[in-house]
Amino acid sequence: MSKIVIALGGNALQSKNSEPTAQGQLSVVRKTCEYIADISCSGYELAIVHGNGPQVGRILLASETAKEVTPAMPFDVCGAMSQGYIGYHIQQALKYALSKRNKNFPVLTVATQVIVEKEDPAFKDPTKPIGPFYSKEEADRLMSEKGYVMKEDAGRGWRRAVASPIPRRIVEIDAIKDLWNSSIVISCGGGGIPVIENMDGTFEGVEAVIDKDFAAELLAEQVNADILMILTEVEKVAVNWGKPDQQDLDEMTLSECVKYIGEGQFAPGSMLPKVEAAMKFIRANPNKRAIITSLDKAIEALDGKTGTEITFA
Amino acid sequence: MSKIVIALGGNALQSKNSEPTAQGQLSVVRKTCEYIADISCSGYELAIVHGNGPQVGRILLASETAKEVTPAMPFDVCGAMSQGYIGYHIQQALKYALSKRNKNFPVLTVATQVIVEKEDPAFKDPTKPIGPFYSKEEADRLMSEKGYVMKEDAGRGWRRAVASPIPRRIVEIDAIKDLWNSSIVISCGGGGIPVIENMDGTFEGVEAVIDKDFAAELLAEQVNADILMILTEVEKVAVNWGKPDQQDLDEMTLSECVKYIGEGQFAPGSMLPKVEAAMKFIRANPNKRAIITSLDKAIEALDGKTGTEITFA
Repeated sequence: MSKIVIALGGNALQSKNSEPTAQGQLSVVRKTCEYIADISCSGYELAIVHGNGPQVGRILLASETAKEVTPAMPFDVCGAMSQGYIGYHIQQALKYALSKRNKNFPVLTVATQVIVEKEDPAFKDPTKPIGPFYSKEEADRLMSEKGYVMKEDAGRGWRRAVASPIPRRIVEIDAIKDLWNSSIVISCGGGGIPVIENMDGTFEGVEAVIDKDFAAELLAEQVNADILMILTEVEKVAVNWGKPDQQDLDEMTLSECVKYIGEGQFAPGSMLPKVEAAMKFIRANPNKRAIITSLDKAIEALDGKTGTEITFA
Repeated sequence: MSKIVIALGGNALQSKNSEPTAQGQLSVVRKTCEYIADISCSGYELAIVHGNGPQVGRILLASETAKEVTPAMPFDVCGAMSQGYIGYHIQQALKYALSKRNKNFPVLTVATQVIVEKEDPAFKDPTKPIGPFYSKEEADRLMSEKGYVMKEDAGRGWRRAVASPIPRRIVEIDAIKDLWNSSIVISCGGGGIPVIENMDGTFEGVEAVIDKDFAAELLAEQVNADILMILTEVEKVAVNWGKPDQQDLDEMTLSECVKYIGEGQFAPGSMLPKVEAAMKFIRANPNKRAIITSLDKAIEALDGKTGTEITFA
C-alpha cells in the first residue's frame, strides 16, 4: 500500500466565515475527516501533519491577556498546547469517520518536538508575525524588557515576530515509525514544537514557528513515504494568480518551479513554502510523488486527474 | 521484565514554593524524570500517567479571563491542551535523563480520550472545583446562562464544580499497547480527556475531571501491568494522620483498606482515590502489586523496603 503524508492547511481546521471557537473548529474538522477517511479507504496508509497558526496565536493571546491573573506561557508551551487541542479534535473526528466506514484502527496524536539549529539564519531576522497586536508604547517596552522583535503590521498595530527556522530532525521519529503499521498518526502539529539541542544533550524549547509544510516534508522523507500531499484552499497551483492570464498547472518540473519562484509567482508564507516543500521531497526522491491540491479533490489528485504534481523533470 | 504504570501526583510537576510558571514546572519535571529514569534503568518497563489539576485550572482561568478578546475554550479542550503542555515537558526531560544513562529509546506523549458514562451518578452531583473564583453575581449569571454548577468555596468566592466520573475505557488503548514494547508512553494525562460515546458512535467531550489514579489503574489493567505505582508526597500511607498516634503502614490488606476507609482515615480527593485505585487493581489482580509511596523512595519501595503495599489478604 502506498504511504502518504498529508499536510493540512488552516482551511481544513477552521472556517473563515465562522467564529474561531473550539466548537467551530470541531465542526470543520469533522468534515475534513470525512475526506481523510475516504483517502484511507481508497487503499493508502497515511499520517497527518496540520498547521496551527491561528490556534497558537489565540492561545498566546489568551495567555498574554490573562497574565495579571496567571503567568503567561512561553511560546513552545503554547505550541504543545495547540498540538493537544487540534490533535484531539482530529483524532476524535477521524476515528468516527473511519468507524462509519467499518474501519477500526487507532488514530493517535503524538506531541512532537522538532529540532532546529541555533545558528539557523532565520533567528537573525524573525519574520513570522504571531499573537496579539500591541500599541507602540507596549511594543517598545516588550522590545527593551523581553528582547522581543516587534514589527509594525500595516497600520493594525505592532506584533511580535519570531523566526521560522528549517526543521532538521523529529525527536519522536522512532516512535512515529513504529506506529505507522498499526495507526494513523497525527504528528508535527504546527510544524512541531521547535527545540534546539544544547551541547550537554538537553533539548530546549525556542520561540519560533516551523513551517508545517517543511515539517511534513521531513516526516515524509523519514518514514520513507511514497507521496507527500499538501492540501490547501485551491485545487491547483497557478501562475499569474488572480490575473486575467491566470494559468492553473497540472504539473511543474523542478526547473519550472525555480523559474516561477524567481518570477515571484508564489506568495511567501502561503503557496511558496508548499511549492518549496514539494520540491525538496522530489529532489530527494525523484521517483516519488508530491501533490498540491484541495481537500475535496485529494482522491482525484491521487488518481492523477487533478491537482498540481511536482516532478523531477 | 516487570511492567509498571506510574501515576505522578501534582508534586512531581510543580513545586508549592515556586511560581506556577512553565519554567517552574520544567525545573520540577527535570528532577522528577531523574527518578523515573532510575526506575527504568533498574529493569522495569514503564508507562506514565500524570495529574493536571493546577495546570488545567490555569489554562481555564486564562481562557475565561481573556474571553472578551478571544473565545473561551470548553473544558475538554483545556484538558487536551494540558496533556500537550505537561506531556511535552515530561517527554523532553525524560528523554534527556535516559540518554544521560546511555538509554536511547522513544518517550512519547499521546493525547488520550477516556470514555465515561453519561449515566454516571457523578454527573448528578458535581463535586470537583475547577478554574477561577467568581463573585456571587457572576456565579448566578453562569448558573442561569450556562447551566454551570457553582459552589461557594470557603469564603474565597464561588467556583464551578464539575463531575468526577469513573473512567470506563481508554479510546487510544490499542496504540498505547502497540507502543509499550518500544517506547515509554505518557498517556491519560489528567485522567484523560473525558468523552461520552453517543448512540451514533461519535465521541463527545464532556465537562468533567477523571481522577488520574483511577485512569492509571484502568491503564494498568488494560496493558496487563505487573505493578501499579502511585507516587505522591508521602513515603507511606498513614492512619490517624497528623495526630500523636499517627501510624505509617507498610502494608494494607483489602479488608484493612475497607475498615480504614469506613473510619474516614483517607482524605477525599487526596489519599482516598489513591487507596481506592490500588484496591481496584489488587481486587482484579490478587497476585500483582499496588504500591503507594513518594517519588524519591520509588526504587526502595519496588524492592519491598518502604512504601505502602496494598495486598489481597
